[in-house]
Amino acid sequence: MRKLKTNELGRKSIEEFKKADKIPVAIISDNIRSMNNIGSFFRTSDAFLIEKIYLCGITPRPPHNDIRKTALGADKSVDWEYFENTEDAIKILKDKGYLIISVEQAEGSIMLNKFNINTNKKYALVFGNEVKGVQQKIIDISDFCIEIPQEGTKHSLNVSVSGGIVIWEFYRKFKTTD
Amino acid sequence: MRKLKTNELGRKSIEEFKKADKIPVAIISDNIRSMNNIGSFFRTSDAFLIEKIYLCGITPRPPHNDIRKTALGADKSVDWEYFENTEDAIKILKDKGYLIISVEQAEGSIMLNKFNINTNKKYALVFGNEVKGVQQKIIDISDFCIEIPQEGTKHSLNVSVSGGIVIWEFYRKFKTTD
Repeated sequence: MRKLKTNELGRKSIEEFKKADKIPVAIISDNIRSMNNIGSFFRTSDAFLIEKIYLCGITPRPPHNDIRKTALGADKSVDWEYFENTEDAIKILKDKGYLIISVEQAEGSIMLNKFNINTNKKYALVFGNEVKGVQQKIIDISDFCIEIPQEGTKHSLNVSVSGGIVIWEFYRKFKTTD
Repeated sequence: MRKLKTNELGRKSIEEFKKADKIPVAIISDNIRSMNNIGSFFRTSDAFLIEKIYLCGITPRPPHNDIRKTALGADKSVDWEYFENTEDAIKILKDKGYLIISVEQAEGSIMLNKFNINTNKKYALVFGNEVKGVQQKIIDISDFCIEIPQEGTKHSLNVSVSGGIVIWEFYRKFKTTD
């Protein structure tokens, strides 16, 4: 098996990406603090054709060198918008018919592997601050909580890793038949 | 839906984790350079009951404050061992009957959603350096390459995000019926 060279990967140009069909999934960052983590969300969203990232509260915004270092330029391909209050982003998405899904460990949360993704619906996935998680008031206005089952000593995946896992599950459901 | 408190998460003690049944999956770090990324692999491995992490080449090793900052202590729960040469770790795992799976974009790689995980087998998952990926000589002695399908401008997920996605797929297959 020979490793592929960069020019063999079939990478889209930024223009091609902008025009490409996306999956009907938006990401909401509820006060994610770290530039590394946000850069990573941009890269993941680029890979899995996410519609748009809603950067809320203290979430850092492009352009910023520390975001670009992790995003590797994906901050230019993926659409984004900033909202001071996470509630305002959620209101807009609800009005557009998106189901709001907070990724959080909560009473009544549904394990990721049990959550039934309906490919006729649109979803907005909320990821929270590295220490505090998704705000309770945001959970209160969410349609569902999804939880990644965890069996170790921590129950605390890095938020960009949680993002990768959950976004992958939605991408897999919308884009593949497996 | 009420957010759970830390003491409601059912977290294992380190002693309980050491005794717990793991999934038959080991992780091999082939020259991952960043402390953040290795710390994140420890956290992910803790969450999904990985047997052991083989830290190879320039991969940083615990104890180190910068690993602990990201691992949040999971560097104490998950078993690990250091090898100067990645080949030596692979040889030991092959001798123990593990299938060696490099996570890399290569000719003949199998897309993650198409890879048939056999729950009667044992697997060692190789993740490569942030810039160079898995070494060609390591791919040459691997049984399979797995590739995460990517459709954006980069085709380059953060290695700890790739780790989260691939480890999640193996955990899901071994631990759930979905």
